[in-house]
Parts: sequence; structure tokens; C-alpha cells
Amino acid sequence: MSETSREDLRQRALGLDAADPLAARRKLFVLDDGVYLDGNSLGALPVHVPARVQDVLTRQWGELRIRSWGESGWWTAPERIGDRIAPLVGAAAGQIVVGDSTSVNVFKAVVAATRLASLRGGEPSRVGEGPSLADGEPSRAAGDPSLVDGVRDEILVDATTFPTDGYIAASAARLTGHRIVPVDPADVPAALGPRTAAVLLNQVDFRTGRLHDLPGLTAAVHAAGAIVVWDLCHSAGALPVGLDEHGVDLAVGCTYKYLNGGPGSPAYLYVAERHQSAFDSPLPGWNSHADPFGMTSDYAPADGSVRGRVGTPDIVSMLTLEAALDVWDGVSVDAVRAKSLALTDFFLECVEAYVPAGRVTSLTPAAHAERGSQVALRCAEAEPVMRRLIERGVVGDLRRRPDVLRFGFTPLYVGFADAERAARVLAEVLDEVPAA
Amino acid sequence: MSETSREDLRQRALGLDAADPLAARRKLFVLDDGVYLDGNSLGALPVHVPARVQDVLTRQWGELRIRSWGESGWWTAPERIGDRIAPLVGAAAGQIVVGDSTSVNVFKAVVAATRLASLRGGEPSRVGEGPSLADGEPSRAAGDPSLVDGVRDEILVDATTFPTDGYIAASAARLTGHRIVPVDPADVPAALGPRTAAVLLNQVDFRTGRLHDLPGLTAAVHAAGAIVVWDLCHSAGALPVGLDEHGVDLAVGCTYKYLNGGPGSPAYLYVAERHQSAFDSPLPGWNSHADPFGMTSDYAPADGSVRGRVGTPDIVSMLTLEAALDVWDGVSVDAVRAKSLALTDFFLECVEAYVPAGRVTSLTPAAHAERGSQVALRCAEAEPVMRRLIERGVVGDLRRRPDVLRFGFTPLYVGFADAERAARVLAEVLDEVPAA
Repeated sequence: MSETSREDLRQRALGLDAADPLAARRKLFVLDDGVYLDGNSLGALPVHVPARVQDVLTRQWGELRIRSWGESGWWTAPERIGDRIAPLVGAAAGQIVVGDSTSVNVFKAVVAATRLASLRGGEPSRVGEGPSLADGEPSRAAGDPSLVDGVRDEILVDATTFPTDGYIAASAARLTGHRIVPVDPADVPAALGPRTAAVLLNQVDFRTGRLHDLPGLTAAVHAAGAIVVWDLCHSAGALPVGLDEHGVDLAVGCTYKYLNGGPGSPAYLYVAERHQSAFDSPLPGWNSHADPFGMTSDYAPADGSVRGRVGTPDIVSMLTLEAALDVWDGVSVDAVRAKSLALTDFFLECVEAYVPAGRVTSLTPAAHAERGSQVALRCAEAEPVMRRLIERGVVGDLRRRPDVLRFGFTPLYVGFADAERAARVLAEVLDEVPAA
Repeated sequence: MSETSREDLRQRALGLDAADPLAARRKLFVLDDGVYLDGNSLGALPVHVPARVQDVLTRQWGELRIRSWGESGWWTAPERIGDRIAPLVGAAAGQIVVGDSTSVNVFKAVVAATRLASLRGGEPSRVGEGPSLADGEPSRAAGDPSLVDGVRDEILVDATTFPTDGYIAASAARLTGHRIVPVDPADVPAALGPRTAAVLLNQVDFRTGRLHDLPGLTAAVHAAGAIVVWDLCHSAGALPVGLDEHGVDLAVGCTYKYLNGGPGSPAYLYVAERHQSAFDSPLPGWNSHADPFGMTSDYAPADGSVRGRVGTPDIVSMLTLEAALDVWDGVSVDAVRAKSLALTDFFLECVEAYVPAGRVTSLTPAAHAERGSQVALRCAEAEPVMRRLIERGVVGDLRRRPDVLRFGFTPLYVGFADAERAARVLAEVLDEVPAA
């Protein structure tokens, strides 16, 4: 390309950064002089977090010790922090609880979804496909109401999902006597039927960055009388989710990507208020008890989002996350989404302008309605290319099968000049790495 | 009592502290001028931990970011820290993995125990008690091998256990088609039979401080062909456990009590090496996959203790724990046990000497073989008494039903003068609080 076009893109980047209402947020994060495009794997450290964690360690733990369960608000942290996340995913307060890993929350949600579905009774089963022991259909697990009607025996799972969701859903299915139906999200409407108990979907595909139609798919699942569980790992903090608006039943997500909660920070579980009184957790630890300090041998679940808790909350990580969430104060998720789309548009435009034809192919949809906040470029030489990119300060990551260069755009701290530079360095690297 | 006796006890305390080989460890902890006897609820902060956590936050997360998964050893932390805990509970390396809460690990262990038991096949069932659908016995969950033999359908659970174990075991039983048999640990041998699949026991009772006979009960469970799961929350770091020596199958424990890992720090799971290849987790998250970064849709479990992992490890809490474990370097668990028994003996002697007859009754066994590292005193006025004790700097805690004053003795930072002072202040407080 010509030097004129290159200069034009650089100037446009500077103009876009100058007009960016979120640009001032960047100074809230610890960043170096490189371009960090892996915030969809691990969000950057907010500057103020270490001092806050020091206080948790030295004063709350070191000096107050057990008094901190009350005085420092440790005991109520899972719900309190859940309520901080709630507006970012379009949920009213009282429906999100923080704790455990995403995988553990997927397990709670999928098992609970099958139990919620069973309470509704089934639609009439398809002719000739009704379950019976003689047909080798799943039998009923002892005492498990998820199989009481014996009709809704299928869990549909996004076949393109992050693998842990599939592995955990399979375990949930095995334990509750359901069967897993792997399905491409686009094919969910056709796969739904009277046997569908629950559907587990990722809002944004971790590999391609494709955004699925949460409102439309949720409505389709509901029309079939089933329960939907959304995994928000790659969407929360990057785009409006609208859990309440779209009537989502259950959702889970991590907090260490766009929410910048720290490596492996606690995940969260959303249980829509209308389902809370019937939410029947497969992990009914003492923290979910109506009277946890009564320490009685009989289990009685608490009301509200607390019912999604399990064991003692992991306070150091949890309060690290709570501190990190301060960077969202005053931020509109719509503004984040607008910048995210502008960033990925601009990056794709720069890639198109800079990178020799045929070396990379975008797996990320061009249509805004189908795009999350990352760009995935298929590239036969992905591994040496990403290594060299990182050596030059442009940090993305790799996903294999197929070979994909993955670049995450975190609107709170990535700018347009970063996007232009990343594309330019990518073109330089591809010049050096021969095509396979 | 006479002033002479009081002075005698004080002098003996000073002598015992002067001769204590662990006395020097106290300076490794942040303590105030009170007496902290609640380390069996939340261990004290080791002095060096905050600086280590600052490094995790500012350098590992802030500067290295995702590179820390490799360069800072984040990815392997669960097994590495497990190997640090291993010698404290008598386990060879490679059998303990850290992560998740105790409750979540109880779930993994109990479900996996029933699956291990099923692989053995059942003993002949009792005459007339063999399961059949017609008898209303539990049916077989679809595809779940834990019920393949259909004979071992009982899970024995310590009826005096910390409640979360019972709640979680009941959920595991419900999902796997077993039934729960609540049993006093002393009655376990009589309750074992050919239908027993698994037995879940606490080594030390959280309320009374009673130490159960881990070697004898483990042998009894094995003689019945069943699998034992031990909860070590109130024993690890306080006394020798001997997991390998006594042939324990599975064990779980928390790290925030005697191990001082911080509030709600990650728990751990022990899977004896001989069971690892058949360990079949109900929470098969991507971290337990043989090739986690292959991100394939088919689940293939990793070998070794890694198989007990679930989701992304909670790094900030995990590395806080790892730093905290440094206080154990060079400590012999036998020395800890010797001091623990001497401390609780001396405290009970001081209570006997100072406290007016009839005001408190020890629920903690006098026999060393039956005593953990806490003293539980039944006291009708427990609530106002504990409130006043805390006001005077003697920090224990309360357990209700019955009203119990609970005092934990953590040999790394509690001394004999502390024990004498605690008993003396208790007597003063009881003088002020009228008997109910």
C-alpha cells in the first residue's frame, strides 16, 4: 500500500482516539508501551487494585481477622459484588452471586435448569419417542425431580462452545439422566422440541468472536418450554447483554476477561428472580443455607441469589475483583459497545489495507449484529506470527484447530492507534514469515 | 483458688514457653497483644504474605499479564501448592490438588467415591434386601457407572459433621441414586455392610474438638469393601494425619484454619495414587483435561492429581496461600502435635483451677487419642461470656445448639502464657456474668 494510505489511517486513528469518550479510562490501568490485545483472556490490572488488596490483607485479615466477616463485609461479598456486575449485564439487583469458577457455575446452572424444566411438566412427546425403560431410555434417578416427568430428557449444548461448558454439561446430563445434543447455535431453533429440558449457549464464540442472537434464541427456547443457560464469559463487559430485558433464565460468566478481576478471579451465577424460589442447586453448601450459622443437619435453602452460593467465599480474590470493578463507575455499556465495534471495524480495515492478500482470513463476522469484541484471523503460520508479534509488543493469543490469531479489543484501555499499530506490525511480521 | 496456685500456673506457663521449640514461629505472624484462639476458624496473617501478594499483583499480573501463566508458574499452582500441603497431611507428592471450596471438593470426592466403589462390584447383598425396582429401590441413573452393580447404594455420613458435608453428600446421593445413612462416627463399624459404597467422615469434630480414629475407621471401611472420604478441615496443620500410611482413599480440607491461607482460601483434594486412574470426577472442567489447550469437544481426563482440577485456578488467593505455607518450612508436624496437646492440657488445667465449679463443662475428650487442637466448653451463658472475652482481647468463637465456647490452639503462634491468660480472663468474665 502507499505511504499516503498508511498516513491516512494513522491520522484517522489519532482523530478517533481524540474523540473517544472512553479514552480517559486508559490511565486507570497498568499498561506498558506495547499493544495489549489479550484482555479477552486476562484483563489488565487497574492501578488502584494493589493498594486495596493490601488493605484487605494487612488490616482486614491481619488486624481484624474474624471480625472482618461482619465489619469488613466479607460475608455478604458474593451478593454485593454480584450487584456491582448486574448493571453491566442488564440485570436488576438481587439476581447475581459471585463465587466459584465458571465451570462450577455451569454445573449448578445446567443441573438446576433441568430441574426447573421438570417442574413445568413436558409437552407431549414426539410420537413413538416417548421414554420408557423398555426402549432403553434413561431411567429416573432416585429422588431427582429433574426426571419426574420423564419427557424432557435432552440438554442442547452449543457444539462450538468453550470446551469446559460441554464437558460439564455432559457430566450434568450423566448425573441427571439426560442426554446431550450437540448443536450449532444457528441450528438451535430446529433442534428444540418437547424433549428439550435445557439449552446451554455461549453468547460470543471464544474462537471466532461470533456474537449469537441472545434475544432470539432465548425466545425460541422459551417457546419450546425449555430453560436457557447463557455463558457470558466473552460478552460481559464488552457489549450489552440485557439478561432481564430478554427474559434469560440462568447465566454464568467469568470476571477475569473484560471485567479485569484478576487471574482466575471468581465467576458469577445469574438466576432470574422468577426462578429463585425453585432454583434447586446440585451444590447446596452451607453458604446457601437459610440459616448458615444455625449449623443444623437439615438443609433449607436461602431465598434470593444467596441460594447460588456454595462454600466459604474466597475473600482475597473476591475483594480484588470488587476493587477492580471501580473502573466501571460511570461507564455506559452502550458506549463500550459503540467503541468496541468501531475498534474492530477499524482494525479489520487496517488489516485489509496493510496485510498482503491471502495471508489471513477473518473468522469474525463483518455484520455488527454478529460480532463480539474480538477479531479472529485464520492464518496458516499463526504460531510463528504470534510469537513475533508478542516480541514486538503486540500481544494477542493463539487458538488451534484451526490456527487462529486472536485479538481482543477491550474498550476501556485499547485505542484506535493501538489497532492501527497492531495491524501494521502484523503486516511486517507476515513479510518476514514465509507463507506455509 | 489461692494466689499461690495462680502464681504457680503463671510460672509454669513461662517455663513451658521458654522450653517451646516452636515459640520462635510466633514472630512470623501478625498478632496483637490479645490472645487469638480462633485460628481454627481463620488462621493469622503471616507477616511476609502482603509483600508476596503485592508482587503477584503488580509484577505478575500488572506487568507480565498472560505470560505469568507460564513464567510465574500460575498454571501449575494447584499441583505445586498441593505438594506443599502433602507433607503436612502425610501424603507423598502428586496426590493433592488445590482449588475450589471445601464443599465443592466434598462433592467431587463423594461422587467419585461411589464410582470407585461400583468398580469393585458389590459384596453379596443382605438376604432380602437386594435392590430391585419393584421394591422401590433406587433405580440406575442413565450411564452412571456408580450404580452399575446396583448393590452398594449407601453413603454413610458422619451425623455430627460440619453441616456442609452432609448437605453436599445428600446432593451427591440424590444425583447418583444412593441413599444417605447418617451415623455417629463411633457407630460406623456397626453400620458398614455390603451395601456401603462410601463413607464421609470428619477427622476432628468442629464443635467438640473430638478426634476420630482415622486409622481404625479407614481399616473398617476397607474391610467392608467401601471407599472412605476424610474431611481434614480441623486436623490438617494441627496433628499428624498420615493419609498414605493409613491407606486413606480420598480426602478434602480447607486451608484457612491451621494452614493460615487467608479468608476463604482454596481448599484441596487428595486422591490416593492407586485410585487416580479410576478417579471419575463429576466436575470435569477443562483444567482436568489431558490436553487442556487442545480445546477439543471430547473430554479425556489428565493423569495424576491434575484430574481433580475443574476450572481456571483462582491465582490471587492461591498464591496468597502458597506464600503463607512458608511458615511451615522446617516444622515437624509431630512437634506441632506435642505442643497442641500440651497447650490444651494446660488450658484445661487452668480452667479447672480458675473457673468456679459447674459454670463450664468440657466437651473435648480428656484422652489425647481423642482430642484435636481445640477446647470446647459448654456454657449456658456462652453468648455474653464470649462477647466479654473478646472485649478483653481473648478471641474464641461460639457454636450453638448446644451453647459452646470454642477455643482453638494453633501451636505455631499460641503459647502457654496465652492459655493461662485465656483461662484467667474466662474466670473473671464468669464472675461478672451471673449463671443462667
